[in-house]
Amino acid sequence: MFNPKMETLPREEIEKIQLGRLRKTIAFLKNSKSMLKEKIKDIHPEDIKSLDDLKYLPFTTKDDLRDGYPFGHIAVDPSDCVRMHMSSGTTGIPVLNLMTKNDVAQWGEIMARCLACAGLTSKDRLQIMPSFGLFNGGFGFHYGAETLGCFIVPAGAGRTLMQLKLIKDLGVTAIGAIASYPARLIEVAQENGFDFRKTNLRVAILGAETWSDEYRKRIEEMMGVKTFDIIGMTETGGVGLGIDCEARKGIHVWEDHYIIEIVHPETGEVLPLGEEGEIVVTTLTREGLPLIRYRTRDISKIISYEPCECGRTHVRIDRIKGRTDDMLKVKGVNFYPSQIEAILLKYKGLAPYYQLVIENVKGKDEMTIIVEKTDGGLTDQEMERLNLELYDFLGFRSKIQIVPEGTIQRVPGKAVRVIDKRKK
Amino acid sequence: MFNPKMETLPREEIEKIQLGRLRKTIAFLKNSKSMLKEKIKDIHPEDIKSLDDLKYLPFTTKDDLRDGYPFGHIAVDPSDCVRMHMSSGTTGIPVLNLMTKNDVAQWGEIMARCLACAGLTSKDRLQIMPSFGLFNGGFGFHYGAETLGCFIVPAGAGRTLMQLKLIKDLGVTAIGAIASYPARLIEVAQENGFDFRKTNLRVAILGAETWSDEYRKRIEEMMGVKTFDIIGMTETGGVGLGIDCEARKGIHVWEDHYIIEIVHPETGEVLPLGEEGEIVVTTLTREGLPLIRYRTRDISKIISYEPCECGRTHVRIDRIKGRTDDMLKVKGVNFYPSQIEAILLKYKGLAPYYQLVIENVKGKDEMTIIVEKTDGGLTDQEMERLNLELYDFLGFRSKIQIVPEGTIQRVPGKAVRVIDKRKK
Ligand SMILES: [Zn+2]
Ligand SMILES: [Zn+2]
Repeated sequence: MFNPKMETLPREEIEKIQLGRLRKTIAFLKNSKSMLKEKIKDIHPEDIKSLDDLKYLPFTTKDDLRDGYPFGHIAVDPSDCVRMHMSSGTTGIPVLNLMTKNDVAQWGEIMARCLACAGLTSKDRLQIMPSFGLFNGGFGFHYGAETLGCFIVPAGAGRTLMQLKLIKDLGVTAIGAIASYPARLIEVAQENGFDFRKTNLRVAILGAETWSDEYRKRIEEMMGVKTFDIIGMTETGGVGLGIDCEARKGIHVWEDHYIIEIVHPETGEVLPLGEEGEIVVTTLTREGLPLIRYRTRDISKIISYEPCECGRTHVRIDRIKGRTDDMLKVKGVNFYPSQIEAILLKYKGLAPYYQLVIENVKGKDEMTIIVEKTDGGLTDQEMERLNLELYDFLGFRSKIQIVPEGTIQRVPGKAVRVIDKRKK
Repeated sequence: MFNPKMETLPREEIEKIQLGRLRKTIAFLKNSKSMLKEKIKDIHPEDIKSLDDLKYLPFTTKDDLRDGYPFGHIAVDPSDCVRMHMSSGTTGIPVLNLMTKNDVAQWGEIMARCLACAGLTSKDRLQIMPSFGLFNGGFGFHYGAETLGCFIVPAGAGRTLMQLKLIKDLGVTAIGAIASYPARLIEVAQENGFDFRKTNLRVAILGAETWSDEYRKRIEEMMGVKTFDIIGMTETGGVGLGIDCEARKGIHVWEDHYIIEIVHPETGEVLPLGEEGEIVVTTLTREGLPLIRYRTRDISKIISYEPCECGRTHVRIDRIKGRTDDMLKVKGVNFYPSQIEAILLKYKGLAPYYQLVIENVKGKDEMTIIVEKTDGGLTDQEMERLNLELYDFLGFRSKIQIVPEGTIQRVPGKAVRVIDKRKK
């Protein structure tokens, strides 16, 4: 562990810290330059008697942060900030997160905990594959590795063959990447006779996208690595909010820095342990962009507040199933692309390259699943079984098109899984 | 100044520090893991009685560093290193520079001095436009800004319209970029009615390419900024080896960290002050890749060892004219692309987008200068004058093709100035 004392605090101490820091965050925000303080103008830190009172505070949404563009939602003067990141935002106005020196140190701390949770020490060599820049991924790994003291290979995005060459030549032991990228690494490795087992690579820390357990199993087998699922976003201060551990019994969220709630995506009602809903994040130590009850739109559930086999005591949540924005509604059925992925990748003959094409044909929804084959594709019997499994899950018939390897365009950054032609 | 004490040391103290650190570097290298120690196996630190004895030490070449790939030329164990950068190397094996914690701190220090020399303080907002990653440019500015404490907008390369938007929206006061990139910024600004004078931008720190005084004047006028010429390369520890100051009387090289010599590119003989030749760099404080007399292939001359108007006492060298690798030999005449640029950009009707196409036609060299026009191009009279000026400089007739704006492909990263079809 990077910070054994904090990572193994007894529950009551975690909650004591959380309560104190929540009150401080409220006081800090109320005295700040942020326009978000309007939302809590009638709330006073001493109103919060227990963590249970959190639920009476108003939510903060992505639109609230967009409305602040560029700096209206930032709590400190920009000239007191040293760094910034920006959420790409497929549409419209981006969200900025400005960071003070303390924020950068906080980010380094939580990312160092994540790296250590994935088994890294200062002796590891970490190749960073998310892009560096406005996107928070590259720099998140950078600050974590800097804090942990390990050797950084700052590869950034793309140039897959070069990435493989560096892994081998430099004795790289761990990679950080966008979750879909290992599929590309494996593909280029196969094309070039590159054998991951002849390298020192043993860990892949993946995030920024929803990825299924089946995809996980697939890349662990093919790359001979152990994968770790890391979460976090620009708004909360970047990647590093939490990560799963070797026990693989949920994603630990660093509770001395964040409070996690799960709420009903429509009613906003707080849901009990084990029930699936939207993750809501309250920051406890951020200065540039302190957040009260931020609606992340990510869907998960709380697994346990009990100590984990790994020794860490911080809450565990389920791997993220999808974002409310990514949820598809086809013929009245709601589902996430990652759920389709999980079904497809049970078949060895299918590759982790797929697209869901949704159209409106004569007033009716139609979905075509385009998926690349690998190793000869499916037998007739498998094809039949796949059709049945999809029907069981979706409750409607979808068309399956199995296409040759390399058909679906490889893109830098996040994979394009859905082409919804219904939207104009 | 970032470090007034060191930046204004009297000459004799600079030289005292240099002599001591040179001996230490030799001792360090001799006791290191680097295969480069072979070169100095018969030399002992105490053999160096004065800085004048430097000339008896052997040179280090880029090929020496390539031969070490990946780690043979590195003086410390890779597991004692925390960072690395890599020279792209248009052909063949790349050169790695591995950095210890002290090296990263040294880089931060020299880059902070450079930023301060360009007039920046902790209150500035610096948009970093070179790419982050294996190339050293982005991270060099990052560490410098981190050390100086200014606000970093980590834009990275490309997305020019977004770059302009951020400059305006975020109140950016300074940019760091590859020298040819402002031409693209100006072009996209004009296409989009963007007015640099309605922004807070006042400084552009440019490097990584050779750029003429005429280009400099052009972008200063069009962007309303003051430009600063920054030098440095992966091998020496990255961008930040030196920068010119407001006095604009040469590029200061940080002499407590580096010794500069100018040598004859062919004979290797050390040249006296004022004579043009190849820059040779000896590092005095680097640990991962200490260099004795590294042949940079960059052409410059020493301007003065006297204190500068700005108060700094560190040596001043001329702006880099070109790299020996970039030197063209056409019809027996040697010249640099930047010298052609300087002639073209005297004409307001020509844009800073040009290419020199060199072919062998029936056994004879032919050069065509393709250059984009702007604001209506050249009058017949100007065209005649340009032809004459080029002939005066080159001593042979070249063909000039003036093409519409946007004809020459815009590339991310360094501009492609020469297409030499003679080489197979
Ligand atoms: Zn655990
Ligand atoms: Zn000066």
